[in-house]
Amino acid sequence: MESSPAGSPHLRWHPLKREWVGYSGARQGRTFLPSTDDCPLCAAREGRVGEIPFDDFEIAVFENRFPAFTAGAETPPVLEGVTTAPARGRCEVIVYSADHNASLGALDDGRLDLLIEVWGTRIEALEAMGFAAVLPFENRGEEIGVTLHHPHGQIYAFDFIPVQIARAAEAQRDAPVVADLIAQTDRALFLQDGGAAVSLVPPFAMYPYEVWLAPRRRVASPAGLTGEERAALAQALGDAVRRLDALFGAPMPYILTVQTAPRGFADTFHMTIEIRPFRRDKGKLKYLAGVEQGSGIFLVDVSPEEAAARLRAVLP
Amino acid sequence: MESSPAGSPHLRWHPLKREWVGYSGARQGRTFLPSTDDCPLCAAREGRVGEIPFDDFEIAVFENRFPAFTAGAETPPVLEGVTTAPARGRCEVIVYSADHNASLGALDDGRLDLLIEVWGTRIEALEAMGFAAVLPFENRGEEIGVTLHHPHGQIYAFDFIPVQIARAAEAQRDAPVVADLIAQTDRALFLQDGGAAVSLVPPFAMYPYEVWLAPRRRVASPAGLTGEERAALAQALGDAVRRLDALFGAPMPYILTVQTAPRGFADTFHMTIEIRPFRRDKGKLKYLAGVEQGSGIFLVDVSPEEAAARLRAVLP
Repeated sequence: MESSPAGSPHLRWHPLKREWVGYSGARQGRTFLPSTDDCPLCAAREGRVGEIPFDDFEIAVFENRFPAFTAGAETPPVLEGVTTAPARGRCEVIVYSADHNASLGALDDGRLDLLIEVWGTRIEALEAMGFAAVLPFENRGEEIGVTLHHPHGQIYAFDFIPVQIARAAEAQRDAPVVADLIAQTDRALFLQDGGAAVSLVPPFAMYPYEVWLAPRRRVASPAGLTGEERAALAQALGDAVRRLDALFGAPMPYILTVQTAPRGFADTFHMTIEIRPFRRDKGKLKYLAGVEQGSGIFLVDVSPEEAAARLRAVLP
Repeated sequence: MESSPAGSPHLRWHPLKREWVGYSGARQGRTFLPSTDDCPLCAAREGRVGEIPFDDFEIAVFENRFPAFTAGAETPPVLEGVTTAPARGRCEVIVYSADHNASLGALDDGRLDLLIEVWGTRIEALEAMGFAAVLPFENRGEEIGVTLHHPHGQIYAFDFIPVQIARAAEAQRDAPVVADLIAQTDRALFLQDGGAAVSLVPPFAMYPYEVWLAPRRRVASPAGLTGEERAALAQALGDAVRRLDALFGAPMPYILTVQTAPRGFADTFHMTIEIRPFRRDKGKLKYLAGVEQGSGIFLVDVSPEEAAARLRAVLP
């Protein structure tokens, strides 16, 4: 932790983007690609104990040691001309398996079912603690800066509704966007259709080979899924990741987010699991360049129709 | 060009982001890191002619051969459940120098002054052609997917105002955000102060070591700068890039955007040149991960105060 007043986690308002930006100097020192022997997410074994004091586990959840948001966030610095706020929230790590070399695509459907159940129970617990929005996500792949290889995701809870989450929730309140997507999209864009959950390349994908998953029925969060829906979503999730990994013959670096209803939107929000891959071709990563940064318009090289056709064909 | 109807450049509306997404399958085939001998941006010489049919030049501008937006954009595909639009606009390439190995930081102040002047004349010309918003930008560095090393930028003109540009323009119409930034920000965040142009690390920076430049006087676009302002901006621009390059002893990969007034906002917009570096430490790049993607909240590891102190100290 730095000693400067600007060093402890806090938020500053960006007056042109009209969104909060988070600052947390302490995260620069977080663990970076440790050797397998030193992995803090492996189960405890003789001679060493990482973050998880058990000799085996299925799924483990604990608070992030390098949090960008904390329940007891300090008073933010006072800066001339800048609106600041405490970075109030909670950051959790969710480890998917005791197996250091596993990945979402390698886990069996039972474990993926449990993962979705744990997302639901954590969302309920964090909402009960008073947080306004909860975001489970996974950053996968050294290519996109992942600092620990052991398969894991994270869960962030915020004491306010971030602008982008509010915008999507308002859009869903104005129109049943996700139900329409499932009902109206060309069936050729679907990876899985017909069951209690669907997976598809959205026709407005922002990344090549982007895949969305959703329960067919409008459910606001994983906590509201029936057992049948959870099982269908688990099966579709494993299938989607295996297709992405098969596409270029290497584990696909991706960002996975679980978009769930923020406070006040439970009656109109339809949850989605969104996977944004970062490899657009063998040896080529997708970057946000000048057009994306300067205008907000994403440029996509691979049409959703072509992406879906390739993802459907790559595995039986 | 693909033969599928979705293969020609067009836009699709993202109903949850509430922004356009651009599709252009043809760009996947664009030139990728050619050898220096085959560089299409070098001046013509015996035996080969690239894009520029002259044996020397100072700054060259021409239409992009792989445009994401064109004046004669075709009718977009009709897709069930998706709002589409033609990708109307114009994409230009702007080459900074005939020297293949130059860079913004290596050009002399006179050439940078000319570059800013050319940005202004192209913006005026593209506005006269009827475009609603013009975005000059530069993607620099193989690390972030730049496909040609020869120093160059691009200019995109849109026949509508992209949502993010509109949001920033509306914010500036509601309050003099940039003038306030210049007047109120802690002087310790400034790289250059006191002249007709300033450079500073904005206190709400979204990237470590982000630098903004602006004329002190409110000017809507480079076309409106006085000679004195242009010279001051040119000097500050070269200085900023040299500091970024010196920071980690290697050319800094960055996105540079020139944010100018879109149609209807010329009376309230204050132009900025914004440089967003992608290296946050030696060997570590900044990526947009799950929190940024899923919530819109950027997380920054290096405080603007610390970034400014380092950038000020790294060169005399």
